[in-house]
Amino acid sequence: MSADGPRLSEEGLIARHFAPLAGPGADGLRDDAASLTPTPGHDLVVTVDAVVAGVHYFPEDAPASVAVKALGVNLSDLAAKGAAPRGFLLTLALAPDWTEDWLAVFAQGLGAAAALHGCPLLGGDTVRAAGPTLISVTAFGEVPTGGIVRRHTARPGDVICVSGTIGDAALGLRLRREPEAAWARALRAEARAHLADRYLHPRPRLALAAAVRRFATAAMDVSDGLAGDLAKMLPGLTTTVESATVPLSEAAAAAIGREPDLLRTALTGGDDYEILCTVAPADLDAFRAAAAAAGVPLAPIGTVAAGEGAPVFRGPDGALHRFPRGSFSHF
Amino acid sequence: MSADGPRLSEEGLIARHFAPLAGPGADGLRDDAASLTPTPGHDLVVTVDAVVAGVHYFPEDAPASVAVKALGVNLSDLAAKGAAPRGFLLTLALAPDWTEDWLAVFAQGLGAAAALHGCPLLGGDTVRAAGPTLISVTAFGEVPTGGIVRRHTARPGDVICVSGTIGDAALGLRLRREPEAAWARALRAEARAHLADRYLHPRPRLALAAAVRRFATAAMDVSDGLAGDLAKMLPGLTTTVESATVPLSEAAAAAIGREPDLLRTALTGGDDYEILCTVAPADLDAFRAAAAAAGVPLAPIGTVAAGEGAPVFRGPDGALHRFPRGSFSHF
Repeated sequence: MSADGPRLSEEGLIARHFAPLAGPGADGLRDDAASLTPTPGHDLVVTVDAVVAGVHYFPEDAPASVAVKALGVNLSDLAAKGAAPRGFLLTLALAPDWTEDWLAVFAQGLGAAAALHGCPLLGGDTVRAAGPTLISVTAFGEVPTGGIVRRHTARPGDVICVSGTIGDAALGLRLRREPEAAWARALRAEARAHLADRYLHPRPRLALAAAVRRFATAAMDVSDGLAGDLAKMLPGLTTTVESATVPLSEAAAAAIGREPDLLRTALTGGDDYEILCTVAPADLDAFRAAAAAAGVPLAPIGTVAAGEGAPVFRGPDGALHRFPRGSFSHF
Repeated sequence: MSADGPRLSEEGLIARHFAPLAGPGADGLRDDAASLTPTPGHDLVVTVDAVVAGVHYFPEDAPASVAVKALGVNLSDLAAKGAAPRGFLLTLALAPDWTEDWLAVFAQGLGAAAALHGCPLLGGDTVRAAGPTLISVTAFGEVPTGGIVRRHTARPGDVICVSGTIGDAALGLRLRREPEAAWARALRAEARAHLADRYLHPRPRLALAAAVRRFATAAMDVSDGLAGDLAKMLPGLTTTVESATVPLSEAAAAAIGREPDLLRTALTGGDDYEILCTVAPADLDAFRAAAAAAGVPLAPIGTVAAGEGAPVFRGPDGALHRFPRGSFSHF
């Protein structure tokens, strides 16, 4: 009866490539909807973010890397809200030149990332788009009832902390765009590889979620650059950050050492997917201990202050820098 | 400090146009995630579907109509699973030529549809796409624990029912594409308006959800054409449908009366967004009474039979028709 032509039908593609990723409640992806119920005593936390070829990733990026990014940027949001992942939905809009090979490797990468983070596929929709490929992921997490950590709840006097290192992904993106720049050529191969990897592969800080939930007064993930995201986290409040306290990887420090203007890239670039949060000073030591126990580096970078005005960064030369909102935006 | 240029920032757009649509748990759309918890004793039902300009709607369609379609196709899935809506997430990928006027009217239409169905906005992501506008909606509903109605659980002997009327939207689409066809010109203005409206504006059958949950042994919504969706609902089973039992609107009947080949369009076209379901024969009268009480027309169109093979439709001339899978597909 059926004549699907040279390409599999949508159902055939789903059954072949995505059904193996399906979790409980997804009915093997054979239905139009999934069932999902939080653990008793828990709330669901829901978030959605899309990545677009040519905007959020390079069309030539490995499809498994694209999958890691599409899922990772969403799991990063869950981590910053203090949530543990439960599952995700996928909207895949495929460019006209898509191939089943691309899709197969994308699905494999997605499955590996989903398994790593305990976050199975619950459903999705596949459409064709007369434009670049777009991948929208809706991620579901859960927190104990009432436990979601909000973005705008910091108080004056709270200590501002950031996980991991800042600026690697933005420098990795610069490296992709200007591989022959003097600073890029001066880096060792492993430093270049580190920066390139941080741009390609977000590492959602899910290991820190429980500590964020326990100790943070406010939290968000750093996706649009530390400077801009700090401003977003502190409406009606402000802070002064000593740039020297912002944690840098060896690779980023080497790049900035060679080319000091790259500090601006590190502070305003995007795609860090680290957690930016605030804690009461009395909780700082316990929060740091919990982060250390979770294996996540954590650095205090300033203190929330009363007063309007975008956060100020004091550079190594003592000069104060403000960065306009939206200095980095995918939009 | 901020210099957003001639266009609002993403945050500005969200605050102006979408924050008024935000529901409980959405924190005014100022955070990266929302909190959502099913009513005690209930499961969440989650689904995602995208519409793309030039594929699922005409780029020149009124933005409020696009909004009604983007939300409606998802609420239709919830209704078919027996779920009551709780909220939704929105991914909006805007084509390069988007305008704030378009966005404003889209948001108004979305807000009106969301209010009509009691389904508030919980969050979203806005990106730009170097291609057609794409709108992906993740819809959340809830059912009493374990109550989700699945697609593939029909049994031989169950009666197949469909809500409302079939084929209007597909004929409305034909009307858009061939307004000067003889059959189109022969229709009265109100019939043309009815068909055009059914294509533009899905009417999710949420009023039928409770009855579906109570009585249906299997259910799905009709989005890709009755013939193809019936085949999808009955893997490993079959049925023979008397075409004369398929419910048609006056407008569709008039069109098919004028041009009999349009029956194929009605049976295989998409965008009906009616509910296709099966009930045990003993429950049929009660199901019909519940549907009548909910104000939703319901028609039995056949009986599930053991045996492989796509469903067969017997035409007015007595001839048997099978329609290949994928005879209609947006993909």
